[in-house]
Amino acid sequence: MEENFDLQQKYMRSALAQAKIAYKKAEVPIGCVIVLNGKIIARTHNRREELNQAYAHAEILAIKKACTILKSWRLNNCDIYVTVEPCPMCAGAIVNARMRNIYFGAINLKGGSCGTVYNIPSDNVLNHTCNIFGGLLKEECGKLITAYFKDKRIE
Amino acid sequence: MEENFDLQQKYMRSALAQAKIAYKKAEVPIGCVIVLNGKIIARTHNRREELNQAYAHAEILAIKKACTILKSWRLNNCDIYVTVEPCPMCAGAIVNARMRNIYFGAINLKGGSCGTVYNIPSDNVLNHTCNIFGGLLKEECGKLITAYFKDKRIE
Repeated sequence: MEENFDLQQKYMRSALAQAKIAYKKAEVPIGCVIVLNGKIIARTHNRREELNQAYAHAEILAIKKACTILKSWRLNNCDIYVTVEPCPMCAGAIVNARMRNIYFGAINLKGGSCGTVYNIPSDNVLNHTCNIFGGLLKEECGKLITAYFKDKRIE
Repeated sequence: MEENFDLQQKYMRSALAQAKIAYKKAEVPIGCVIVLNGKIIARTHNRREELNQAYAHAEILAIKKACTILKSWRLNNCDIYVTVEPCPMCAGAIVNARMRNIYFGAINLKGGSCGTVYNIPSDNVLNHTCNIFGGLLKEECGKLITAYFKDKRIE
């Protein structure tokens, strides 16, 4: 169990590294990795401003990469690690991709959809549910977001 | 008002034409158009199987097209017409894109997120809300979905 927790932290650190890349690009700093059988198969960050695309959140771009790699829209045994609790769009996409586990860092009070505002991946009405593990490296994940919005206010 | 209703029906018929293309491809038959200033700027259909992408619902693909055309992730004055009530992912994407009006045809009992299971675009907690008009050409939109799932069961 402790070993698992070490691994989970390792994956979340990779997601954090992606969030830091987003920060440098002046994007909302959210990063994400997708893991299958102990291997990271997709690592991305939020690129909404860079791509000028409303859907270009870290999670959607990671799901897109993973689907391309696996040649399947079903990511059944995949786990997603994301530095901030997914919004409704991203939580819905994770369910649509039939993912297994969701690990997130900081909670998202303004739309978090994995337990805070909604709990979309736990909803039995939908055709799939995922396990949710929130709060992994939450301080580091949260600090990055806080720093970003502080910078924004000073600008 | 009546003229508006005629126009709304016209746009929904374009979305229905897209849904019929999806049907012929053995995709879940959902079609969508995005309208800006009285002009259709994007028309698409569900291509999940064809693209092998979990995110490739009609609405996301239409938003992607519209963002590309307008070179902006903000689709503020755009209206979306979709033959079936959007799922959480798509309703969330419509909010993320800051769209104005959502017109949908048939309701979606298994995840409809514009009033049936959730009402994401009306949620003041999120950073944008959209107007929702459901039930436009609902019989025709619903018939297509019913026919699709009937075919599936026979196969």
